[in-house]
Amino acid sequence: MIVNNQNYQSVWADFNNKRIYCIDQRALPFRFSILELNNLNDISNAINTMAIRGAPAIGITAAYAIWLSHYYNDGNINLILQDYNRLISLRPTAINLKKGADYVFSAINENINNSQVYDRAIEFANNEMNACYKIGTYGVELIRAIHNKSNKTVNILTHCNAGWLACGDYGTALAPIFEANKQNIPIHVWVDETRPLNQGSRLTAWELYNEKIPFSIITDNTGGLLMMKHKVDMIIIGADRIARNGDVANKIGSYLKALAAAAHSIPFYVAAPISTFDFSLDSGDDIPIEQRNSLEIQSIQSYYNDEWISSELFPSDYQSINYAFDITPAKFINSFITEQGIYKNINYLIKQFYS
Amino acid sequence: MIVNNQNYQSVWADFNNKRIYCIDQRALPFRFSILELNNLNDISNAINTMAIRGAPAIGITAAYAIWLSHYYNDGNINLILQDYNRLISLRPTAINLKKGADYVFSAINENINNSQVYDRAIEFANNEMNACYKIGTYGVELIRAIHNKSNKTVNILTHCNAGWLACGDYGTALAPIFEANKQNIPIHVWVDETRPLNQGSRLTAWELYNEKIPFSIITDNTGGLLMMKHKVDMIIIGADRIARNGDVANKIGSYLKALAAAAHSIPFYVAAPISTFDFSLDSGDDIPIEQRNSLEIQSIQSYYNDEWISSELFPSDYQSINYAFDITPAKFINSFITEQGIYKNINYLIKQFYS
Repeated sequence: MIVNNQNYQSVWADFNNKRIYCIDQRALPFRFSILELNNLNDISNAINTMAIRGAPAIGITAAYAIWLSHYYNDGNINLILQDYNRLISLRPTAINLKKGADYVFSAINENINNSQVYDRAIEFANNEMNACYKIGTYGVELIRAIHNKSNKTVNILTHCNAGWLACGDYGTALAPIFEANKQNIPIHVWVDETRPLNQGSRLTAWELYNEKIPFSIITDNTGGLLMMKHKVDMIIIGADRIARNGDVANKIGSYLKALAAAAHSIPFYVAAPISTFDFSLDSGDDIPIEQRNSLEIQSIQSYYNDEWISSELFPSDYQSINYAFDITPAKFINSFITEQGIYKNINYLIKQFYS
Repeated sequence: MIVNNQNYQSVWADFNNKRIYCIDQRALPFRFSILELNNLNDISNAINTMAIRGAPAIGITAAYAIWLSHYYNDGNINLILQDYNRLISLRPTAINLKKGADYVFSAINENINNSQVYDRAIEFANNEMNACYKIGTYGVELIRAIHNKSNKTVNILTHCNAGWLACGDYGTALAPIFEANKQNIPIHVWVDETRPLNQGSRLTAWELYNEKIPFSIITDNTGGLLMMKHKVDMIIIGADRIARNGDVANKIGSYLKALAAAAHSIPFYVAAPISTFDFSLDSGDDIPIEQRNSLEIQSIQSYYNDEWISSELFPSDYQSINYAFDITPAKFINSFITEQGIYKNINYLIKQFYS
């Protein structure tokens, strides 16, 4: 997508310099800066601290990381395996991380050279970004259908950031929104702030602002009232992992919005590439829920006197607990928007996977 | 309640000095300070900026304010009426504000002196605080019943602050919790942060910490997951206004918790004195929802280098919308905990009111 008249992906690899670069998502929306990642320590740190975040984006980063590991370890499979294991344990909930690492790691053998490993990583990244682009072209039809019926601005609520920052390019939940805007379908986006790390008010809002798409930031508490007052036409969220039965792990708070959508008969969509599906798990009960440092709740990153600072919301001896994801049961999801089309249930995708 | 070994109410009147005092709720939990309110400007400012907040507490403040107005206007009913009108328009959602002002204003005539007006205000305040005390003694039985069944720690979720700060003394939603603690029933409280003004993580947490009651602060997004994982035994919230059909206006986000409680068959209680009921309104549709300044979402108050500062969460040209309350329909409320007892529906109270 375009930033300051230049085309960017949120993470990319430089073959010649043996480096990975990413947009530092911690610095947005106040600063646009690029991080240079030279080794697995840099990459781990960027993923842990959410400089790179979003299930597809960390999957792509993992693919690039295995390429870098192959280079620095001179193709030594045992050393690469150590890096692989470290990588996939960085964040437990999003399966894409493992999918990206697997895609490249599985191709490594004695006969492959580093340039070919790089090509393999690029192939994974391009597949993911193409998938996101297709999610946009399929998903826009859902928005168009609502607009055709009402002839009014379509109000779409989204939670967290499932935009191009989270995906390398295009986005998952935001891809249909970008596409609708391109096709001049009138839309307005309700942007859930998304505590504790405010990916909504920082990142989704920044992406929409850049594209000149009308939006309003709301607290995570607000969606229920808006749905009751008929101010939401549809909800689209992304996903971090989707089990075989269609249960979805996504950013904490997604489930509360799904319950409200069900109560008010508002369609609730999950947009995700096939790489986010984990057919090895029976249900959402089996998806590990990441518990992050409670400091993310006790302190807050904000902009003060032209710099980012960390300050306190309550005394550090007050206990807090920070679950990063929740599970939305399949029954609350109207359809899945994927690069293969829109599915009311995922049996077709499961059949394909096992065929 | 006790702070630093001294008994406090959250707002009180001083007859001799013709002043109202309140605990400055904006400064908590990092600073405990007392505000002196000398006139209607001071009072208006304290209510507008949430130095005093909570439906019963602003009702009590309004009662005291009419007494002050009577004193400074030498009993001139037209001038007092001007103050009355200004007072009751300060915050539209909580009906207690008007109830408190009415209680004192309705007693004013040519034959009443300022000392008698003061007594009338004190009477209203004492009625409210006694009501809260009784809410605690009735409500504790609901907690005890759960404990008797499970013989385990009772996990109670609450939203916003409906503690003694919000009520002069004792609290509404927190009154049964304080009482359970006094009676050694083992409890743990899930404290919703309550964006945007964080009354949960600032005020409810502060109150529980002072009473040594175990609690964990969570983001407003977290309750759905906790209920799904069987980590919540009951929910108790306060109320800002309750319509004739039992629909409840309370802090934005209450409704999302009520929906999740219903989905998981977790009892959802609303604790409120009779002064919070507005039998003149048919349903929640008729309750005005206060929309507050969006700056409360765009900027944040936090503690930095030993002082409260205001900093930015996103650029000021990003649009945000700040609804302060939502409506929880009566069907999602198991019972109302009032000073007259626990009611599954409020027909009994309505009959009393009209008899």
